Amino acid sequence: MKKKRVKLGVIGLGSRGFGILKGVLMLLCEQGSIEILGVCDLYEDRAKNAFECVKEKTGKAPICTTDYREVLAIKELDAVLVMTAWESHIEISTAAMKAGKQVGVEVGSAYSIDDCFRLVRTHEETGKHCMMLENCCYGRRELMVLNMVKLGVFGEIVHCSGGYLHDLRSEIANGDINRHYRQRNYLLRNCENYPTHELGPIAQVLNINRGNRMLYLTSVASCARGLHEYIVENRGADHPLAKVDVAQGDIVTTIIKCAGGQTIVLTLDTTLPRAYSRGFTVRGTKGMYCEDGNYIHMEGESEWTPVAGKVNSADKYAEEYEHPMWREYKKNPVSGHDGIDWLVYNAFIESVAEKTTPPIDTYDTASWMCISTLTEESIACGGKPVSIPDFTNGKWILRTEQEETSDSMYCLSKIVKK
Amino acid sequence: MKKKRVKLGVIGLGSRGFGILKGVLMLLCEQGSIEILGVCDLYEDRAKNAFECVKEKTGKAPICTTDYREVLAIKELDAVLVMTAWESHIEISTAAMKAGKQVGVEVGSAYSIDDCFRLVRTHEETGKHCMMLENCCYGRRELMVLNMVKLGVFGEIVHCSGGYLHDLRSEIANGDINRHYRQRNYLLRNCENYPTHELGPIAQVLNINRGNRMLYLTSVASCARGLHEYIVENRGADHPLAKVDVAQGDIVTTIIKCAGGQTIVLTLDTTLPRAYSRGFTVRGTKGMYCEDGNYIHMEGESEWTPVAGKVNSADKYAEEYEHPMWREYKKNPVSGHDGIDWLVYNAFIESVAEKTTPPIDTYDTASWMCISTLTEESIACGGKPVSIPDFTNGKWILRTEQEETSDSMYCLSKIVKK
Repeated sequence: MKKKRVKLGVIGLGSRGFGILKGVLMLLCEQGSIEILGVCDLYEDRAKNAFECVKEKTGKAPICTTDYREVLAIKELDAVLVMTAWESHIEISTAAMKAGKQVGVEVGSAYSIDDCFRLVRTHEETGKHCMMLENCCYGRRELMVLNMVKLGVFGEIVHCSGGYLHDLRSEIANGDINRHYRQRNYLLRNCENYPTHELGPIAQVLNINRGNRMLYLTSVASCARGLHEYIVENRGADHPLAKVDVAQGDIVTTIIKCAGGQTIVLTLDTTLPRAYSRGFTVRGTKGMYCEDGNYIHMEGESEWTPVAGKVNSADKYAEEYEHPMWREYKKNPVSGHDGIDWLVYNAFIESVAEKTTPPIDTYDTASWMCISTLTEESIACGGKPVSIPDFTNGKWILRTEQEETSDSMYCLSKIVKK
Repeated sequence: MKKKRVKLGVIGLGSRGFGILKGVLMLLCEQGSIEILGVCDLYEDRAKNAFECVKEKTGKAPICTTDYREVLAIKELDAVLVMTAWESHIEISTAAMKAGKQVGVEVGSAYSIDDCFRLVRTHEETGKHCMMLENCCYGRRELMVLNMVKLGVFGEIVHCSGGYLHDLRSEIANGDINRHYRQRNYLLRNCENYPTHELGPIAQVLNINRGNRMLYLTSVASCARGLHEYIVENRGADHPLAKVDVAQGDIVTTIIKCAGGQTIVLTLDTTLPRAYSRGFTVRGTKGMYCEDGNYIHMEGESEWTPVAGKVNSADKYAEEYEHPMWREYKKNPVSGHDGIDWLVYNAFIESVAEKTTPPIDTYDTASWMCISTLTEESIACGGKPVSIPDFTNGKWILRTEQEETSDSMYCLSKIVKK
């Protein structure tokens, strides 16, 4: 593809940011799709590491700073990646749009509804987009199942579930006590703090903001036991972390009701021993998919088949229903999160280069990010249902078919013919 | 065992009642544990079928009636089994206790909180018990996991989930339109109508009513699509059932918060295509069990092992942790629901013969049955949290260790040493 080379600033170079820089971004530089003009982190050592990495791999020295405004001030810049601590995602993203840059923001969530509206209003005022770089939307199974949903294989979809089911105790307990944003969030907040794995892929299945929307939610957290017990046993009862209360419940369950009548159950499950999963599950009137066990059950199969007997039955559907994006990707696979990072970053860079609306747009980003603050409110008030704002202000009713005309291979909402 | 022969009346002889009569009860007659003095159903044909069955198999003719009061009037009767439509469970159970009979009531749920209190008050006034015959409390895996929980293998338990995950469309759609209680409930009510698979086993794990209690719940239902679509496709668009609205949402998700801080997630999932499961899941600070995939994940195992790779890993724990009740049962297995019916009916009959408190007592029965009417309220009010009554009026605080001294092999709450 002979596309415009996108001029990029990278803000936030902690573990995730630096990992993406070294992997996906350096490869995109090599391929000539992007050029990195600025790197920034609040901590000088991180910014310098990134600077050295870019300079060594590309031969060009980017601006290196601890103040993100210096990156936004680079005039030729087309876009920035925001990979900072969750708390600053919206602040930096809105500042970037106001500076005329397109924004790709890493996975995270919001701390107030007002901040989400600020994101949307800034997009509407500037015409710039803020795409959440939700890599799970580009998961292989997620896309295969989305393809099957769009083709009607599962009938009408009435329920989905999923979550972030990932034992993070070691990461949180061993993190630097001053710099680790996830750690400080776990100590002080109690909410669904990481909703977009698997809300992102579910939003595609249920056409959220495109003919459907999330109406209200209710959320309840279990007590917090796992992290403290882990800290005491692994870092000792005298460690400073062992002496502070953990606010974040071990398991947070959230039920979301949609305008179309569907329900979504989200689970945050990160501080107890478990095997990794995102628990992606789609239920329709003609069949279902379940990531746990990797199985598909279709209408007409025996209702008594025990679930354990169906394990890995999804594999046989791949030949017929693999998403074209993944058929293409598998020809030239690259490293990093099973290809999902590669796909989502390419989707963003393409939308910047082509000046198109990204497949995950600012309304999606805001409506996914708001879940965190709404669950915080619901949990604090004993599972009180809270309404989910319509950030589109009614445009979701008209946006039904909008995206299906996109000719981007990264488009999530169009129907892909076999 | 040389036990008193229990004199029994059987009320309600539909599909479930007649199945239990033919199987479990006839075997208990044969073994000399019980004698059936009366059979009753609202429908004469069903009562007569049961009468013929008992007469043929035992040589003795029970009283046969369509009025349950005639069964309760049998003076020598020790106990009755209530296996009628859900709507009459509490009415008949309270009448039976007032007539001086012990009560075993089949799985079902309540239509008002007042009715649950009526059950408890009648128990307190009469000294008679009402045991819910929740067979899943006696499931092999449920008991093995309970044993592991009591032995501390999973650490502190913070979360459980489960449900009634059973495609019932064929049963409901093909049921007699006048007699089928499940069918009429699905047409008119929207709630968690069958909570006790898996709430019963979870209540054992979390010591509900014995040092812990359920505090509040919130419940949300999906739209109702599966049953209507099935009826239209299988009985035709002109069938009377195809012309009525279905009230019952396809998937009902309920989150329960306990006094001890634990959460319980219950799912009713009965009108969409799926494989059978009760989804029993127990989460502790040291490990977890999950029925879907039949796996156990323990502290120290790789957090990245995909769930599908752990399938059937629970099997290897059976040798060490199989519950003694099941070790005993497996020596002489009998037919019917994998032995769980046999165990739960024996538990009831033993408690009647020995004049002991049954392992599932009236407080358990009331607190499990109330979930249905509470979810109905919560769903109707958009997921509003509703408080769960304390039917023990504070006795749950003192009942902590009460049952552990029981020497019944059917006792659920005591710690079973290896």
